[in-house]
Amino acid sequence: MSHHAEHTVTVDAPLNLVWDVLVDVKGYSRIFPPTREVNLLEESATHQVVRLHVDVGGEEQSWVSRRDIDPRQHVIAYSQLETAPIVGRMGGDWRAFPLGAGRTQLVLTHDFAAREPVDGKVAGRFSFEEADAMLRAAVERNSVADLNAVKTEAEDRAQRTEGA
Amino acid sequence: MSHHAEHTVTVDAPLNLVWDVLVDVKGYSRIFPPTREVNLLEESATHQVVRLHVDVGGEEQSWVSRRDIDPRQHVIAYSQLETAPIVGRMGGDWRAFPLGAGRTQLVLTHDFAAREPVDGKVAGRFSFEEADAMLRAAVERNSVADLNAVKTEAEDRAQRTEGA
Repeated sequence: MSHHAEHTVTVDAPLNLVWDVLVDVKGYSRIFPPTREVNLLEESATHQVVRLHVDVGGEEQSWVSRRDIDPRQHVIAYSQLETAPIVGRMGGDWRAFPLGAGRTQLVLTHDFAAREPVDGKVAGRFSFEEADAMLRAAVERNSVADLNAVKTEAEDRAQRTEGA
Repeated sequence: MSHHAEHTVTVDAPLNLVWDVLVDVKGYSRIFPPTREVNLLEESATHQVVRLHVDVGGEEQSWVSRRDIDPRQHVIAYSQLETAPIVGRMGGDWRAFPLGAGRTQLVLTHDFAAREPVDGKVAGRFSFEEADAMLRAAVERNSVADLNAVKTEAEDRAQRTEGA
């Protein structure tokens, strides 16, 4: 059971500031509160491989994500190379579009599936239906939180730029 | 209590086809099943005023919408000049962004509020809280349905274009 989700928010900051926030993966631990640590494993002009340590409901989980960066289209395609315990597949895009002068349409998509059960259990604890429901709820919750975190950071930078 | 909502979908059709569907307001009665009739009251290159007759839960309702068309930004800002019985304010944008070759990011936003009660009742029937909850649920439901209707129509046109 594979799912696709898309979420969006309007950011009152120009595209270049939003893009700076998206590309700065090491800054994620500062702007996304559940992200405790980011280890950059590989980096080039067009890709990053990172290990993320994230607080998931009070429990630290960790996964490895590859991010392919298209600075012309302003798209970052992410894909988890090593997933969290209940996740079978997790990928998607960050996309940023210019919206007139000084505003940006920011989009976050997810393509995902819960992990297949082993001996009837996912991560040794959950039925597939439970894991699937938990994952869908987490994607919904995190999409809103992550978009708003980028929006807040980019709008703060825009205000500081204007004030400078 | 004023609300803002944004929804989005990826359309596998080029921007010009999506834009044609959005601008063709007379076609809405064909692509949006609840829309029974569209009367074009005014039209110019940059605006339309339309009366829509829409099936809302089995009951025909009607309202008048002004649409300001920005063909350069591919944005249509709509605003209800005369609202449905429980609606105090309803407006927002259709926005279309090119996403690489042959794909489009389609966004629909809503800024809305339920109508203020008269003698404690909205539309003579509902408490403000009920009207507010009904309106939020309708916006959520219609956003998904309307985005998917435009997506389906534009993708059908793209396939017909390829087949031609």
